[in-house]
Amino acid sequence: MTVAQGWQDSARWERMKDGSDCPMCLDGHLPVNPFSFLVAELTHSFVRLPRNQFMRGWTLLILKQHACELYELTPAELAGFFAEVALVARAVAGIYRPAKLNYGVFGNLCPHVHCHIVVQQAEDDPTKPLNMNEREMLLDDAEYDRMVRELAHAIHVAA
Amino acid sequence: MTVAQGWQDSARWERMKDGSDCPMCLDGHLPVNPFSFLVAELTHSFVRLPRNQFMRGWTLLILKQHACELYELTPAELAGFFAEVALVARAVAGIYRPAKLNYGVFGNLCPHVHCHIVVQQAEDDPTKPLNMNEREMLLDDAEYDRMVRELAHAIHVAA
Repeated sequence: MTVAQGWQDSARWERMKDGSDCPMCLDGHLPVNPFSFLVAELTHSFVRLPRNQFMRGWTLLILKQHACELYELTPAELAGFFAEVALVARAVAGIYRPAKLNYGVFGNLCPHVHCHIVVQQAEDDPTKPLNMNEREMLLDDAEYDRMVRELAHAIHVAA
Repeated sequence: MTVAQGWQDSARWERMKDGSDCPMCLDGHLPVNPFSFLVAELTHSFVRLPRNQFMRGWTLLILKQHACELYELTPAELAGFFAEVALVARAVAGIYRPAKLNYGVFGNLCPHVHCHIVVQQAEDDPTKPLNMNEREMLLDDAEYDRMVRELAHAIHVAA
């Protein structure tokens, strides 16, 4: 039996969309949650490091307020959020020296605006569709801690 | 024999990055190019409809100026570009009534800032990695023309 995900469970999807049952509203700010670690709190977003580091450097920004689509934000909120995406991207690029960064606002499993910053390295295949979860690569706690501190520092310096 | 793509051809990649050999700088503004059709010219971007409409409603915004990464833009350019992404997304949503929109700034084949707006419908699988080119679905010219006009009108109304 497969569990309905995203919009496949239409009743829950509506509650996720209106914010009354949104997982990211509940745990996006926590120091540690099942998916990721908090790196920094910025004005508009929480910056997080996903546990799965198969694509090493994968970083997430979660909009603090609840919204599903970019056009629900005011111009100031939208500008503020993407200014933070760009700031964090600069920090990620400084650490991981990518061939290219990818920026993805998807929300197919949780419709709360968040942006994935994904590092493409020279040895990666540029024709492959983006899939940060193609494999799972978990690290030990000391390494997560080191990566969180390194990125937090780089964001602080870039700001 | 496979042709090197994206950063696999490092010499060309450098020329694409610095803008001296950037395909999007050359053809992103044309009414018709091999990849897509021009829908609208906005202040910061050209809006285009890709020929491959396997994921129906797929729309593209190409930044007018050359830049590779979001952090290369000034705050005003970045805010202006994403304001246009949001405007076009609202228009696309009004036409195609998606379960969710996806917004992707990738550039793995051409490192010139552009944003894919991709329509996820209720019958799509929310767990599948985004791949607008999973299959090729070409339409006839009359249908492209109708879609271009419909979207251009919706953008005009939303602006």
